[in-house]
Parts: sequence; structure tokens; C-alpha cells
Amino acid sequence: MTNSVGIVTPQKIVFEDPIHLSSGYVLPHYELMVETYGTLNADKSNAILICHALSGHHHVAGKHAETDKAAGWWDNMVGPGKPIDTNKFFVMALNNLGGCHGSTGPSSINPETGAPYGSSFPVVLVRDWVETQARLADRLGIKQFAAIIGGSLGGMQALRWSITYPERVRHALVIASAPKLTAQNIAFNDVARQAIITDPEFHGGDFYLHGVVPKRGLRLARMLGHITYLSDDGMGEKFGRLLRSGEYKYGFDVEFEIESYLRYQGDKFSTIFDANTYLLMTKALDYFDPARHYGGSLAEAMRQAQAKFLVVSFTSDWRFAPSRSREIVKALLDADRTVSYAEIESQHGHDAFLMEDAPYMAVMRAYLNNIAAEIA
Amino acid sequence: MTNSVGIVTPQKIVFEDPIHLSSGYVLPHYELMVETYGTLNADKSNAILICHALSGHHHVAGKHAETDKAAGWWDNMVGPGKPIDTNKFFVMALNNLGGCHGSTGPSSINPETGAPYGSSFPVVLVRDWVETQARLADRLGIKQFAAIIGGSLGGMQALRWSITYPERVRHALVIASAPKLTAQNIAFNDVARQAIITDPEFHGGDFYLHGVVPKRGLRLARMLGHITYLSDDGMGEKFGRLLRSGEYKYGFDVEFEIESYLRYQGDKFSTIFDANTYLLMTKALDYFDPARHYGGSLAEAMRQAQAKFLVVSFTSDWRFAPSRSREIVKALLDADRTVSYAEIESQHGHDAFLMEDAPYMAVMRAYLNNIAAEIA
Repeated sequence: MTNSVGIVTPQKIVFEDPIHLSSGYVLPHYELMVETYGTLNADKSNAILICHALSGHHHVAGKHAETDKAAGWWDNMVGPGKPIDTNKFFVMALNNLGGCHGSTGPSSINPETGAPYGSSFPVVLVRDWVETQARLADRLGIKQFAAIIGGSLGGMQALRWSITYPERVRHALVIASAPKLTAQNIAFNDVARQAIITDPEFHGGDFYLHGVVPKRGLRLARMLGHITYLSDDGMGEKFGRLLRSGEYKYGFDVEFEIESYLRYQGDKFSTIFDANTYLLMTKALDYFDPARHYGGSLAEAMRQAQAKFLVVSFTSDWRFAPSRSREIVKALLDADRTVSYAEIESQHGHDAFLMEDAPYMAVMRAYLNNIAAEIA
Repeated sequence: MTNSVGIVTPQKIVFEDPIHLSSGYVLPHYELMVETYGTLNADKSNAILICHALSGHHHVAGKHAETDKAAGWWDNMVGPGKPIDTNKFFVMALNNLGGCHGSTGPSSINPETGAPYGSSFPVVLVRDWVETQARLADRLGIKQFAAIIGGSLGGMQALRWSITYPERVRHALVIASAPKLTAQNIAFNDVARQAIITDPEFHGGDFYLHGVVPKRGLRLARMLGHITYLSDDGMGEKFGRLLRSGEYKYGFDVEFEIESYLRYQGDKFSTIFDANTYLLMTKALDYFDPARHYGGSLAEAMRQAQAKFLVVSFTSDWRFAPSRSREIVKALLDADRTVSYAEIESQHGHDAFLMEDAPYMAVMRAYLNNIAAEIA
């Protein structure tokens, strides 16, 4: 595994100090699943936090075992000699609170009841995640991150960090993100949520107690999600109107390649992801709106920040289009902050932020090399 | 009811001659629900056929009773003195075969079994609809239409008419349409279909026998459809991020105005539309590809046509974007046909073709006035 961080082992970190969430709910105890790569330097100035998006988690790079088929979700970006260079940086990633990959979430056992939280698990906001991430940094003695990096919902966490803890973020890298969702974004999320909630096997969120999973709903949510992650052109190039059998079958079984792809993705996802976590992640997206407490002015919100920013967008991303990234850039400029902006030509839609693409990698590498130079 | 066609009465027309469908299925008997406005002139040269889109039907203009709350679905376009002027034209509309508004469809009783067709109802292609519409014209003695007009899936029928029956169409008006679906279009349709088919109350299409309706699936399909009918900007202008209660509620009930709108539209639709008809209409869309039998060349397909064309698109329509209409225009020009093209500035997305908009109405009125002048 050249350029790989190799075999990594996640660790579960227990927090016994209650956390007061934005919703008013107090979670007395929680655990976070964490993975780190590289070595924290003596003055703890080389730490990078990677924040994940809707279906992401702590397993960013490397493998958990030699026999693993796939590496972590951002293995092309993180590793020795890669843009986020683990020879230079100590990289940390976690599964966010409310997740379903080892951190405390709706599918976890509530120690007070001995049963899964299910419907009783609270809604969690981006600002709540930032709070848990700050506590995690405290635990490791990291006072300030060299960079906080995230794509999509992950970029929103980087933005929120820069506002809530200005002195703890030297650089925020906000990739394929948006300052808040549009009505259309919320609409797509709501269709996905309704697919899950109206699945008879959802049981109001307490399906764990019935020994079932709302697979149909989760499958539809994921199929729909995938359409919004890909571009019309990219989908056209990859699938076009190709028929699986070459001829019309005049029925409702899989007929076009795109149907086969989406149904496969939906089926796979529905067996591995927790339905309540999906709901929770989409609500965190809907609620994110840092300008809200600054009279609706994003510039005013960004004026709190001390970080320098790299904002990256992709031309064919219609979920969070370049225009959304430019809103962030404009607000930063209006607030007299330092920001670099790259708009990457790509056919891969929103998913482009996860993919290997030379100009994108070059931008990331150059920016992170500059950060590394500041440390050395 | 100024400028209205007034009170109209649909009529059911029975066809006893079997129809051989593209799928190979033979339907021995079928009925079409039809509505007409205006008067057929002596030489039957002033007939206009209006073809409906996915959820449309024969009731285009006027009301069925004084107490009706709403008029037909294109009442702003069709009536005395309106762009499609019933003082000049004899206007005919029908509910397509496979529909659920009175024409023979999956919810109709199969006279051979005494039970609803359900899953046994055949897939119907756009070309099959054109065949049934041609037979309907024969019944009325209409050899040639002054114009065949349709938006979206309706525009595909007008295109198909001009290829299959070149001598029977003087003008084809193809509005907010496309020469074939993209992979993304098919993908959205398949998510809608999967929502219906995986609803436990779908019962493989034979839900009628179980006394239930797959409302959940139909509701999701309609919610999703609505997102694709509206533009991001239009949705933003109408709903933005407005909260129903003014404050975040940190739960999964309706919270944003856009959620309320979509759920309401979905709920309403799920009680009035037939799930099998919805499946059938989306398949007709997926299959439409007139270039397919002409070596993939749309120009070659259009070379069959003798009609003159008006193609209309709307700037914010992302379901069938202006670029899709321009494909049709280019093919017509390459085939040396006569075509006028109007790209209307609008924020209303795909739905714009149904809405009152002065420049759009003016284009339609001018074009149809010219057709009327040819007849007089």
C-alpha cells in the first residue's frame, strides 16, 4: 500500500461530562469513535481535523485489516506524500455524534434504559458537533488546529468552527459546501425523510425493538441522494440511455443501466446505514445557517473568524453549486478575511470532492504545503 | 365566466377494433374519455388536438358544473379569445389510454375477467397513444389537424404524430419538451416508480383486489416530481427557508414552508391518482426516443415530418431545459423543416408551460393566429 497510512485502528473515546445540545436536550454521557494518522508534534501545532459529510465517518484513510477491500473514504487525499500529508500533519477524524459507525447515536444503547435510543435520540446541530469536536481536541491537548477540513456538510462544520472558536482554527478548508440550504435542498431532504418515516417498518424510529429495519425508505432516500450527488452530464456520460439487455422489455424490472446502478447503491446502503442517523444528518443540514444569529448577514458571521480560508467548488455540482461557494467567498471578503477560492472544472457533480482529480489535488496540495511551511 | 368555454361535458368513446400495442400486447376493446370545445368547420380543417402530460387528462378548459372550484388544466390557454381560440378552432383533448380519468387503464374493469386490469395492463408507448388518437380523429372524420399541441410528455406526442402521420399534422407545437430523456430524467422516474412498487400496499399492481391504495409511494413520487417541476430560484422566491412556526422545533414534523407545500401536494395526489397509471406514464417518458429507429439521428426522424413547428422552452426549466428544446430545433433545421423557436424567460421551471405569462401567451397567440389565417 504505497502512500497509504497502512493499517489503522479506530478508538472509542468516552466523555462523561454532560453535553447541553442546541435543542435543549442534555446528553449525560457519549462516546466518539476516532481515527488518527501521523504524529502530533511537540507543540501540537500540526493537527488537522477532518469533518465528514452525510454518510461519512471516522475511517478516512488506510485499512482496518489487510483483507479490507476498500480503504477509508478519503484515502486519495490523506496519507504520506498525499495532499493532506501524514508525514507532516497529525490528522484526526471522528464519527460525529448521532452517527452509526461507533459514536453514540440513535442505534446505541441508552445506558439509562438498556434499550436503543431510537426516537428519543435528540436532533443534533452542526454547532453541537463542533462542541463535541472541541472537547475531543481538549482531550488530546490540541489548543489550535493547523486546519479544519471538510466537504459538503463537513465544510459547514469547518465554517462553524471558524465562527465559534476563532482562536482554535488557523485555516478552514470549505469544499463543495454552502452557507445554508436552499428551499430545493430542503425539499430533497424532506422527500428522503418522508420515505424513511412513512416506511411501515420505521415504527416511529423505534424499529430496533421490532427486529426490523426501514430498508425500503432508506433505499429510496439513498437513490434520490445519489441523483443529487452526480451531475446530469456526468450521469449521461457514464450511463446514458444504455439498456441492460439491449432491448426494451416493456415492464418494470431494471431496464436502463442507471436504474441498475441506483437500485444497487440503494440496496447496499439500506443494509449498512442507520435510518435515524440519516434523518438526523439531513436535519443538521437543513438547520445550518450561521448568518441566522447575525441579523441574516453571513459577512457579519464570518467577521468572527480569525482563520484563513480555502473555498473549493466544482463546476457541475448542482447540489451545492459554485454560486453557493461564491456566497461564502463574498461574505469573507466583505468581512475583510483572507480567502483563496478555486472553482474546479469537473463532470462529477457534488461527488467530485471525493474523487481523484489532478487540478483539485494540486490546489489542495499547494494550500496544505503552505500550511506545513508555517509550522516548520 | 368571461373568456371561458363554459360548462362542458366529457364523452366516452368506445373502440371495439383491437389495438396492437408496441409491447406486442393486443387490447381487444378500449374506451377514451374525450372533451371538445368550439365547432368543427365544414371542411374539418380547424381541428386542434391537445395532448396531455404525466398527470393530465381530457378536461382542458371550462368546468363540468357551475359549482366546480377549478377549471380545466389549461383554461388560461384555451377558450373564446384565448391563445388557442375556441371561436376559431375546434379543440379536442382526451385522457390517454392507460390513464385514470375515464379512459381504459389499469384501474378499469377488464371485461374478460370482471376485475381491474391492475398488473395485467400493458405498458403503452407514446406511439401507441398516437395510434389511439389517430383512430379518434378517424371517428370524427378529421383527416388532418390544423395543429397538435402539447407540453412536456404532450410535446413528445406532437413530435411523434409529425413523424408517424406526416400528412395529418399541419403544425406541431412542442412545449417544454425533449427528444428523449437523459439518464438523470430516467433516474428520477425510477425513484418514483420504486417508491410505488415497494409500497407494501402496491401488491404487485393488484392493490384494487385488496381494497387498498399505495398512497405512501404515490405521495413520495409526487413530492419528488414537484421538486423537478419547479426551479431552484422559483422555489427559493416562493418558500425560501421560511419556517412555519418561526422557530426551529428540533423534530421531524413539518418545519419549513416548502415541506408543508410538498407534503400537501403529495397527500392530495395520492388520493386521486392511480398508481399503475403513474408507473405507465413514466415508462412512456423513458421509452420515448424517436431517433432510435433512424440510426440514432433525430434529424433523420424529423425528415419524415411535413408539419411546421413551434418549439417553446422556459429558461428555468431544468427537467427539460432549453438545451433539450434546442436539440429538437437543430434536428428540424438539419432536416430542412420549418421551425420557430421561443425561449421564454421564466422563474417557474417546468411548470411554466401551464402558467399565465404574458410573453408566453403572446407567442402562442401570434403563432395560432397565423394558423387561423391559413384556414380562413
